[in-house]
Amino acid sequence: MIKKAYLLITLVLLQFSCKENDSTGIYVQNSTELHTAIANAIPGDVIIMANGEWTDVEIKFVGYGNDQQPITLKAETPGEVILTGNSNLRLGGEHLVVDGLFFTKGYSTTSSVITFAINQDTVANHSRISHCAIVDFNKPQRNQTDLWVLFNGRYNELDHCYIAGKSNRGPTVRVDLAGNQSIKNHHKITNNYFGPRPPKGGPSAETIQLGNSFTSMVPSYTLVANNFFDHCNGEVEVISSKSNFNEFRSNVFYKSEGSLVTRHGNYCIIDGNYFIGDVNSEQIGGVRLIGTGHWVTNNYFYNLKGKTFRSPLAVMNGIPKSPLNRYLQVTDVVVAYNTWVNCISPWQFGVGSNIDQKDILPASEIRSERPIRTIVANNLVYNTQGDEQPIIAHDALDGINFKSNLINNQGNSFNHEKAFRQENFALTQQEDYLFVPNSSLPNITPFNGFEFELIAYDLFGNSRASANQIGAIANTENTNPNIMDRSNYGPGWFDLVKINDSSSNVFNVETTVELETALLKAKNGDTIVLTAERYELNSSLKIDKKIWIKGALDRDKKISMHYKGAPNTPLFQMNPKGQLTLSNVLLEGNQKGFAFASLTDHMSSLYNLTVTDCEIINFAYVLKAYKNSFSEFISFRSTLIKNCANGLELSAETDDRGDYNAENIHIENCRFENVSKNVVDYYRGGYDESTVGGNLKIANSTFENCGGNEENGILLNTYGIINVNLTGNTFTNNKVKLVARLWGAKNNLFSNNHIENSGEMVVEQNLPLTLMY
Amino acid sequence: MIKKAYLLITLVLLQFSCKENDSTGIYVQNSTELHTAIANAIPGDVIIMANGEWTDVEIKFVGYGNDQQPITLKAETPGEVILTGNSNLRLGGEHLVVDGLFFTKGYSTTSSVITFAINQDTVANHSRISHCAIVDFNKPQRNQTDLWVLFNGRYNELDHCYIAGKSNRGPTVRVDLAGNQSIKNHHKITNNYFGPRPPKGGPSAETIQLGNSFTSMVPSYTLVANNFFDHCNGEVEVISSKSNFNEFRSNVFYKSEGSLVTRHGNYCIIDGNYFIGDVNSEQIGGVRLIGTGHWVTNNYFYNLKGKTFRSPLAVMNGIPKSPLNRYLQVTDVVVAYNTWVNCISPWQFGVGSNIDQKDILPASEIRSERPIRTIVANNLVYNTQGDEQPIIAHDALDGINFKSNLINNQGNSFNHEKAFRQENFALTQQEDYLFVPNSSLPNITPFNGFEFELIAYDLFGNSRASANQIGAIANTENTNPNIMDRSNYGPGWFDLVKINDSSSNVFNVETTVELETALLKAKNGDTIVLTAERYELNSSLKIDKKIWIKGALDRDKKISMHYKGAPNTPLFQMNPKGQLTLSNVLLEGNQKGFAFASLTDHMSSLYNLTVTDCEIINFAYVLKAYKNSFSEFISFRSTLIKNCANGLELSAETDDRGDYNAENIHIENCRFENVSKNVVDYYRGGYDESTVGGNLKIANSTFENCGGNEENGILLNTYGIINVNLTGNTFTNNKVKLVARLWGAKNNLFSNNHIENSGEMVVEQNLPLTLMY
Repeated sequence: MIKKAYLLITLVLLQFSCKENDSTGIYVQNSTELHTAIANAIPGDVIIMANGEWTDVEIKFVGYGNDQQPITLKAETPGEVILTGNSNLRLGGEHLVVDGLFFTKGYSTTSSVITFAINQDTVANHSRISHCAIVDFNKPQRNQTDLWVLFNGRYNELDHCYIAGKSNRGPTVRVDLAGNQSIKNHHKITNNYFGPRPPKGGPSAETIQLGNSFTSMVPSYTLVANNFFDHCNGEVEVISSKSNFNEFRSNVFYKSEGSLVTRHGNYCIIDGNYFIGDVNSEQIGGVRLIGTGHWVTNNYFYNLKGKTFRSPLAVMNGIPKSPLNRYLQVTDVVVAYNTWVNCISPWQFGVGSNIDQKDILPASEIRSERPIRTIVANNLVYNTQGDEQPIIAHDALDGINFKSNLINNQGNSFNHEKAFRQENFALTQQEDYLFVPNSSLPNITPFNGFEFELIAYDLFGNSRASANQIGAIANTENTNPNIMDRSNYGPGWFDLVKINDSSSNVFNVETTVELETALLKAKNGDTIVLTAERYELNSSLKIDKKIWIKGALDRDKKISMHYKGAPNTPLFQMNPKGQLTLSNVLLEGNQKGFAFASLTDHMSSLYNLTVTDCEIINFAYVLKAYKNSFSEFISFRSTLIKNCANGLELSAETDDRGDYNAENIHIENCRFENVSKNVVDYYRGGYDESTVGGNLKIANSTFENCGGNEENGILLNTYGIINVNLTGNTFTNNKVKLVARLWGAKNNLFSNNHIENSGEMVVEQNLPLTLMY
Repeated sequence: MIKKAYLLITLVLLQFSCKENDSTGIYVQNSTELHTAIANAIPGDVIIMANGEWTDVEIKFVGYGNDQQPITLKAETPGEVILTGNSNLRLGGEHLVVDGLFFTKGYSTTSSVITFAINQDTVANHSRISHCAIVDFNKPQRNQTDLWVLFNGRYNELDHCYIAGKSNRGPTVRVDLAGNQSIKNHHKITNNYFGPRPPKGGPSAETIQLGNSFTSMVPSYTLVANNFFDHCNGEVEVISSKSNFNEFRSNVFYKSEGSLVTRHGNYCIIDGNYFIGDVNSEQIGGVRLIGTGHWVTNNYFYNLKGKTFRSPLAVMNGIPKSPLNRYLQVTDVVVAYNTWVNCISPWQFGVGSNIDQKDILPASEIRSERPIRTIVANNLVYNTQGDEQPIIAHDALDGINFKSNLINNQGNSFNHEKAFRQENFALTQQEDYLFVPNSSLPNITPFNGFEFELIAYDLFGNSRASANQIGAIANTENTNPNIMDRSNYGPGWFDLVKINDSSSNVFNVETTVELETALLKAKNGDTIVLTAERYELNSSLKIDKKIWIKGALDRDKKISMHYKGAPNTPLFQMNPKGQLTLSNVLLEGNQKGFAFASLTDHMSSLYNLTVTDCEIINFAYVLKAYKNSFSEFISFRSTLIKNCANGLELSAETDDRGDYNAENIHIENCRFENVSKNVVDYYRGGYDESTVGGNLKIANSTFENCGGNEENGILLNTYGIINVNLTGNTFTNNKVKLVARLWGAKNNLFSNNHIENSGEMVVEQNLPLTLMY
């Protein structure tokens, strides 16, 4: 007995001696000290990483804390421990906490930056990443795949983090469900700020993905709550739920070009979320449903203009006996107590119906099974201006049970009107983007469906038991959700203003050397004004920031830039994050160089290009986009393009995996003269209906004597591009067979074009495409 | 206030006046009284149906009891309220109990006999069918589909019932999962006796089916426990689990020709069940696994001889990205702490692999995905005689993690031996069919896999925490499971002996009239001895019971029966439940009649036929099976068949839905002479790998001068039949192109046949077949 007591005392002493720095933690200053501290950590330990830059640090955080005494790894000062270069973090064990780290200026060489596993056998459980940030931590090229946070194990959390700027392939956050140790995981992704994710131009750019089709039968129980999604534009799915029993609650989707999609798996809850759109974007979606048993309740949709796949509520058609990775029929879904304000055609059912394509697609691709056993009840739709089609039925609606839905469509009638009761009432603005009912709301008894008593609270968390009404908001008392107060999200220490900081210096440059020097010195957002008449350049100008280069306006004729660099090099070399606005300049080449081009590789992020009031003459290419380069926005306005061998060449993504080189191309009031081929060559290959880009608009422009060397015989080649609009253009004496071949099954439009001696403009309903999956 | 009190008193009085017969219940004697009683029933009421036969009664039992006070509908004496004719029972509401009813001598005209729903909107919840029986309540023809018990709603029970004899199409018991009111149902199917269900000859004859592929994503949570399955031979699946989170515990599968199959859905538990086989049957299976996350623990497998799909443990291959109704890959499965005693090739992995058929089947039919992330641990295999292949790997085993498995294979080596540790030990017989470990069992530390601590108890319910060991049985103390004590199952009042009662009278008949009279009078199991030399018959003998007709043996020459009935009618008309054994008789026709035939329709149940030491001469058909007829066993032994236009014609199931006309055909030591065509014509159409019949054995027989009029050129036509064995036969001077065309991909065998001037015997690896689904 004495022996035992002695042993106990020794153990207690040992414990004390290990925790040498108990009150403040174990302070570590380099990787060796860090890993020693981790190796020796016992429950309750706090390891503190010294402030400063930690480069190429791969942290393997293995430890076994307990419920009362986790093992913590934290920054000396939150946000001031900066992991750069090839750094990453893996966790394995139980009850681990990581707090305050900042990953930026680098990328992980592994497949994920933060991983809740060391390897297949050692996962982390009950562990937490908190108050951290990952910003612009991109692999060098967008086709190189990784994840930024990979969940394995069970009961892990990602909370109060700021994560933004992922531009390479791969979801930002992913939950892995393979293996019994990762099922029924009850992970929590809460109170994070998901900052802007630019469009990737093709699939695999979700902000959150929960599982994949192969594990779509897994009970996951992941909670995604109280997050802010700010311009998460990576692809058509902001969140892709691919497992069962996940819950999405009280998130704000702010101007994010995509939807919350129950892509695979069943029985998810989407409750109390805000979907905020923008009148200027047709890309911002709401909720898209596939599968069985989802409940969509208490959500608020505002100003959404997305169509079909991106519509505010898209209830899809399924494939009969669908393969595991395609589209299960929608059954047993409940859409109740939601509110749509100023959305265009908010309710779309049978989305993706493609019965008319049964002759050109395999049977396993035909979405002919419309939603069944689906209840749509107690919802509210309000339109300031009458909507012509509040409901679009892409297939029959006989499987939808509409009950006690209310609309104010300003009295305008519409199809399927019996799905609603139309009344005249008003809403009151509560705060930015948020309109709530007032006493003018008609008193309608809500439909009491099976288990509707489980919808116990409204959007604001007020009980529906005492005071209930149609729509997301039952009660407007105590209602200051402050959805746009960004301090509710993310780590707190992260300065959102700083991130968006743009100084605005102006450099006036008189010579080529001054121009080159100014470009090096300029900060993001600066302006360079060309004040001389002529600049001769023998090498490319590297555009790797936001910069505006413009010719001074007070000259008689346009200021000119003459490019004499090596053949096949560009005057303006578009680098990752390069955003060039060029105006009032004449660019002249020697028929060998290019006016604009991306890097040939290492395009780790996108570039943008706006050209206004310019002239572009004598180049081999106006714009050359290399493989893996991507631009979100390319705009040519009021510009003359003349005597060039090639025009805008954006067709380097030839793998037919759904990728493409630019999201939006706008050409307006331009004039193309004697551009021999590839006047516009814009390509997307691979059949994948859920990807909805790219977008091309050519308006009020003139094409004359172009396409003389065009091998494919098409002047404006847009093969595979989903949204094309050619309007008000004039085509004269272009030696081509076709001006354009449009894709009738997609959103390819043309109007008011004048064509003379230039071949035809044809529409093909269905284009043969490679199946992607 | 006074008014309110008055109302309350009135209500209480009313309540009393309704419950006129509270202590004994509300006694009802006819349908009108019954429905009045139901209409007025309040919580706590007991409605008592008078003993006797209730014919054509359709009971709609709607009521709302509560947890403490259910509404009960019960038999005056359990088992003596007999519902006959077109009777059925539907329940709707809450907390209803039905007790002691007996459905027999009839069938329901509806789609189910007992239904836990009135219609789509009104289901039953918390309701219970108890101590009831359904016996031989078959629709008139086997292709007419129904169910005997259909579950809807939630929290319903079927317990202590006896259910036997279903022979028409459709599962005996089915759980319906369409609609949110029927998900997460927690139904219980417990302590029932599932009596014999004869083979149907084709699909859709499960004893229990939980959901279907369309609802296979539903969380079901149905419990099937403590039931006895006695010769449930309907089809290859005794239980077909097609939903998620179902549990199968402590059931006894006794000589049931099929398996417990996780056909669709995932995460089922199969724990503590007994699978008892028979050395004489290769049809009795164990557990067949498809899908993800199932746990197979503490089960006991004895004397099972089933192969591939029916093997004691069949872990299947899946189809890549399988369609909803086909085969999902096996992943994340655990098979632990089970015992196999004297089973042949008990472990089979990659079952259903058909990569070699990729040229003839569509890609969506190729099961090429082998099991992955699967743990097989702590299992025990014991063989009294060494097994050549305890493991059969139909595909690679690299996805299976074998840990701490123990085998006594009597020292015989085998493939994949490293999956086991082989030791010499013995088992002790505890009771019939049950062998348990003794002190000779080597002490091996069980593998401790992820969540193996959840396998807390063994087969007998003893804790594994204190004393643990390999195999289903951790501890042999307190171990008298008495698995064969049938009083543990079913309603108690049901006399299993009476059901199997067979008297055994013998009738000696001297004349045709005596024969016909005796046949009418005879009871099931009786014998008729023909004592005269010759019987002339002008009409058919109706065989609708178990009967043995034999010629007296003490005569010089065979006693003969001459049939002169109408053309195309049979001497022996095989009716439902007819079981004829015929021996030592010469049958002679006039070339117009048939020797044996089924009814042309209304074959509500199967027939069997055994012919020994007979001669069959001058018939248009020896045996003619009509559409929808089915025989489990047809046997011809030591019989001469001569001068007949047609032989055994069993090819009426031409819908190609997987059905066929007979399960087993055995022909041994027979002689066929001058049978012009259809000598044996046995057909099954429709590709469905999971159906594993029929079975044809022709041994030591002679075929001479047959097939002269055979249009298809094949003497023995067995198209689509899975198991064929032609051995030791002699074929001489048969004018056919082929003696037989065997199906190489299936179990079609031939050996030691002598063929002379009779065409060839060929094997085709793959037969073109219609896909069934």
